[in-house]
Parts: sequence; C-alpha cells; structure tokens
Amino acid sequence: MTPPTSPADGGVVLGVDLGGTVVKAVLFGPDGTTLATTRRPTGARRGAEAVVETVLDVVAESQAAAEERGTPVRAVGLASCGIVDERAGVAVFSASFGWRDVPLRALVAERAGVPVALGHDVRAGGIAEARLGAGRGHEVFLFVPIGTGVGAAVMVGGRPFGGAHWQAGELGHLIVRPGGESCGCGQRGCVSTIVGGPAVLRHYRELAGTGPDGPTDAAGVAALARKGDPDAVRVWSEAVDVLAESLAVAVTLFDPSAIVLGGGLAGAGELLFAPVRERLAARLVFQVMPEVRPAELAYEAGCLGAALLARDLLDRDLPDPAAGWSG
Amino acid sequence: MTPPTSPADGGVVLGVDLGGTVVKAVLFGPDGTTLATTRRPTGARRGAEAVVETVLDVVAESQAAAEERGTPVRAVGLASCGIVDERAGVAVFSASFGWRDVPLRALVAERAGVPVALGHDVRAGGIAEARLGAGRGHEVFLFVPIGTGVGAAVMVGGRPFGGAHWQAGELGHLIVRPGGESCGCGQRGCVSTIVGGPAVLRHYRELAGTGPDGPTDAAGVAALARKGDPDAVRVWSEAVDVLAESLAVAVTLFDPSAIVLGGGLAGAGELLFAPVRERLAARLVFQVMPEVRPAELAYEAGCLGAALLARDLLDRDLPDPAAGWSG
Repeated sequence: MTPPTSPADGGVVLGVDLGGTVVKAVLFGPDGTTLATTRRPTGARRGAEAVVETVLDVVAESQAAAEERGTPVRAVGLASCGIVDERAGVAVFSASFGWRDVPLRALVAERAGVPVALGHDVRAGGIAEARLGAGRGHEVFLFVPIGTGVGAAVMVGGRPFGGAHWQAGELGHLIVRPGGESCGCGQRGCVSTIVGGPAVLRHYRELAGTGPDGPTDAAGVAALARKGDPDAVRVWSEAVDVLAESLAVAVTLFDPSAIVLGGGLAGAGELLFAPVRERLAARLVFQVMPEVRPAELAYEAGCLGAALLARDLLDRDLPDPAAGWSG
Repeated sequence: MTPPTSPADGGVVLGVDLGGTVVKAVLFGPDGTTLATTRRPTGARRGAEAVVETVLDVVAESQAAAEERGTPVRAVGLASCGIVDERAGVAVFSASFGWRDVPLRALVAERAGVPVALGHDVRAGGIAEARLGAGRGHEVFLFVPIGTGVGAAVMVGGRPFGGAHWQAGELGHLIVRPGGESCGCGQRGCVSTIVGGPAVLRHYRELAGTGPDGPTDAAGVAALARKGDPDAVRVWSEAVDVLAESLAVAVTLFDPSAIVLGGGLAGAGELLFAPVRERLAARLVFQVMPEVRPAELAYEAGCLGAALLARDLLDRDLPDPAAGWSG
C-alpha cells in the first residue's frame, strides 16, 4: 500500500476509521509503513456512549502498542461517518451511532494527550486518493465510494469541500425516481435506493426470487450479470444508468477533470466502468467528459486519510485540510 | 450604490462588463464612487474581431477620460460571458461573440499599459455580491442570476469556484424535462428552457396567444400573474417549480447557507421569492434550508465585480480571486 509519507517527517501517527459497524485503527510509522492494525465492533447497539468508549479504548491500546515499540504516537486522526463538523471537531450526527453533537476531537485529545484531528470518512478517503491515489494530478475531482449507498467527496486542490454545514456532495441523495422507493434519508427515489449494494441485491431478488443458490450480495449479482443472467443484467444496467445520470448532474455543477469510483460496487471493475463511461459520455453535450477511474486505496482510504489529517497537524507548513475551501 | 472600496486604496480602476449585446465600462474612483460610465454595442454581428476592437476602444476612451481628470486608470478588470479561463486570461468560447481562445487579458494589457484581470460575468457578479452585497457573511453561497437563462456562481470564502475547465455551476443546464424543448446548449429540457425570461414569455404566448395588448417580456407575464391571469399563473408557477427543483439539487450537492437570486426575473420580487422559498423548503428533507435572498447589486454586479478583480491586482495582500479554490 502507498504510505502516507511527508517531507517534514513527523514520527508515528494513528489513523482511526469509524465505520458503521467497525472501528479500525492503523499505526503508521515515520516512513509510512503500517506498524499495527486494530479492529473492534463499534458497540453501537449499546448506544452512542459505547461507541465513544470503543474509540477511546482503541486509541489508548494503539498508543500503548506504539509506546512498547519505543515510537510513541505523535498525533491521532479520526474519520467518522455521519455529519462531521471538521472545524469544530464535533461529530454532529450519525444514524449508525445514534449520536448528536459529540465533541469527539476534544474527548480523544484529552485522553490521548497528543494533537487530534477529526474528519469525515468519505472526505478523508478523498484526501487519501488526492495525495496518494487515483486523484493525483487532478485539481478538481470527485471521489465517489459506492457501498451501502453512494457518497461523494468534492476535492479541490487536495482539499475536500464541506459546504456551509458539512453536508456537501450528497450525490446518493439526488432524486432520480420521484415518488420511488423510500430512502433512509427521508426522501423517496434517491440514487442510493438503486445504486447501493443492498439495493442491487434487493432488486435482483424482486425479479428472480431468493433461491438457495442465489447471490447474497451485490458482487454475486455482478457475477451473474457478467455471465449474462437476464435478471442480473437488468438490475445492473439500471444501477449503471442511474449512476451515470447522477454523475452527469455532478459534472454539470462541479466540472471535475476526474471521477474516482470506489467502494464495494467498484470492485466489479469494467462491468461497472465501461458502461458508466459510455453512458456518462452520451449524456454530456457541452460539458467536458472527465476521466472515470477506479480508486486505488480501496478499504484503507479511510484510515489513510485520517492518518494524513494527523500528519498535517505535525506538518504545519501544509495547508489545514479541515479548513475546507475557505483559503 | 455600494462602492468597491478597499483598505489599501489603490486609485482609479476600470470595470468592464462584456454582456451578450452591450459592452459597459465604469470608472471607479479611489473612494469607490462611480466617475464615468460608457456603453457601446458589442458589434458581435461583425464578428469576434469587432468585439475585441469594441473592448479595446471602450478601455482606451475610459483611460483617456480618466487621464483628463488627472486620475489615470491604475488597473482594468474585464468580465465576460461565455467560457473564461481566468488563470490563463483567455476567453475560451462565447456563442454570443463567436469567439474561441481569445487572449483577451494580454490584448487589453498590451494596449492599456496597466495590469488587467479577466473574469467571468456571473462569477464576477458573485464576487461583488460576496463582498458588497447579499452574500456578505456567507462562507458558502450561490449567486444565481436569472436572465435569458439561469446562471450560477458557487462562492466559497468570497471566491468563485470555476471547476477544472471553468464550466462549474451550470445550473441552467440541468435537465429537468428529459426529451423536452431544445436548448441552445445542445441538450433538451434544460432548466433554462423553462425558467429564463424568453422561455416564460414564449410559454405564455403558447397558452394565451400573441394579442396586441399581450405582454412583451417576462416582467409583463409576471404582472399578469400577480393579477391572477390563469395562463400567466400557470406559466409562472411552472417556472417557479423548475427553479425550486434545480435549487434543491444544488443544495444537496453544494450545501450553501444562502442562495442569492438576481437578474431580470428576480425583479418580480415576492411573486418569485415567496413560492421559491416554500417549494424549495418542501423539497428538502435532511438538507439545511438556505436563506433565499434577492441580489443587492442588480445590473451593476458585473462591472463592480470586474472592478474588484482590477482592485485586487493592486491589493496584493488580498487573495487572488482568479485562483479559484485552489488555495
């Protein structure tokens, strides 16, 4: 994996990714190598406080492990799902964790005794792709991970755009089928009701039933589509259409030179990329067609991005990614 | 009118707005007052070179007028419609002027002998609203002038976002009626085929015919709608619906704290603003509803914005607005 090195090398940093179900922490050495990895269920079913305790425990354990090696953690970066106010260091909202306005940066900093940065998981992934992955060389690009739903980080000059309320880039919640399926966000007919992994599986099962040999995830549906299974082809094709439609909207408004697709669905490779490129190009008239490229850092992007936020705290000559685009 | 003053006051500057039919130039004094205004038809029917000559003439005349006053022009700002590469100083494309890749900044600088900035008319208007108008106090807002069609400047920290190819913010060319009316951009069913001034008049005439006492512009249709004329109400209501729909998309992707509506259609006042606010709010679920406010600088915004670009050339301590969001 490409390591988060920096010119002004600042010792060991810890990158922590708070996903919907798992807290993952990676210790990165001074030369960017992975020294140790810790995973722990979030404990979200026991409530928001349990998640905070899990994070504090994982950070403390990682610090202890680093101390034992004689290379103490110099800074901690956290990347969380939900709505994250990066400037204030507050986890504003997460449906997964059931929390509101948790001052996570301060809580971790108090316990850890080192500088702490708090970012958003998708935006942190965008930072990692911008500096070390598929976004290199692109001043303006979109990082679009497709997992449970469709997320997006709008990257400009290596920095993510948060909007006025840290809610920018909600590509997965553009409405493409007015009056369509209910979405977790409260709207109906969102992109994520058709393009996400669960949606692809659900729509396949609606067409083909749920036999014992049937696929159990979107990758299984993709495999069937590759073999020409008509139901799988139909479901896959609709997901591709809706993704291309939403990307055309994003291109019209953001004018990026690249779109970096990541997450589970991007694992389908050319089964996804070839028709997305073709259908996006067909939708664009005056707009400039961006490169549509696979993400390079895959599941590590969250921890890596968090580690980059941590390293930036040590490299004061670099711009502060938490400051967004405000210059 | 609010003047473009600055702390490090730098003498007289010239702001030039290249609109579709008229070149307008305003001399701004050291204290920000308007010293003189010049208007000239672009001459676009005689070709791209004629437009360039018009611009050079208007600049030269304004400079001569300023010299006569004993206050020579210290810098020139140009704001053009079409696609403008602000970093390179090149007018990349304009259907109105029939030009491609005109190095306008260099041409004017050579003739004028003072520093010249080239910007885009909508983005320059956004800069004016950001510093002197309705965008003050908003870190992230959209400036949306509605004239012939719908434009948008995405303003972040007082600076406009250009995208990778200076084509960001094409709100008027989101497709809201697939397969609908042809648009000048080459697509069908764009926002601007329903929300622009000509579209509102045309749709009214399709319903009500073109009697001798009928309205001759969108303001006339608005006046009839205000009186309850059913055809006018129907056309106006559809324009409001489509505008609200496109703004909902923009809010989902940009998360602004304000939307500043300007241009001719915004002159309809609460006939526009009240239902736009109501219908936009009705479309938002998880998104934060932005303030929807009228522009404050009206038709002066282009020249003012251009003058601010010129003044920034003199105030080196301010960030360069032409640098976009690249930090």
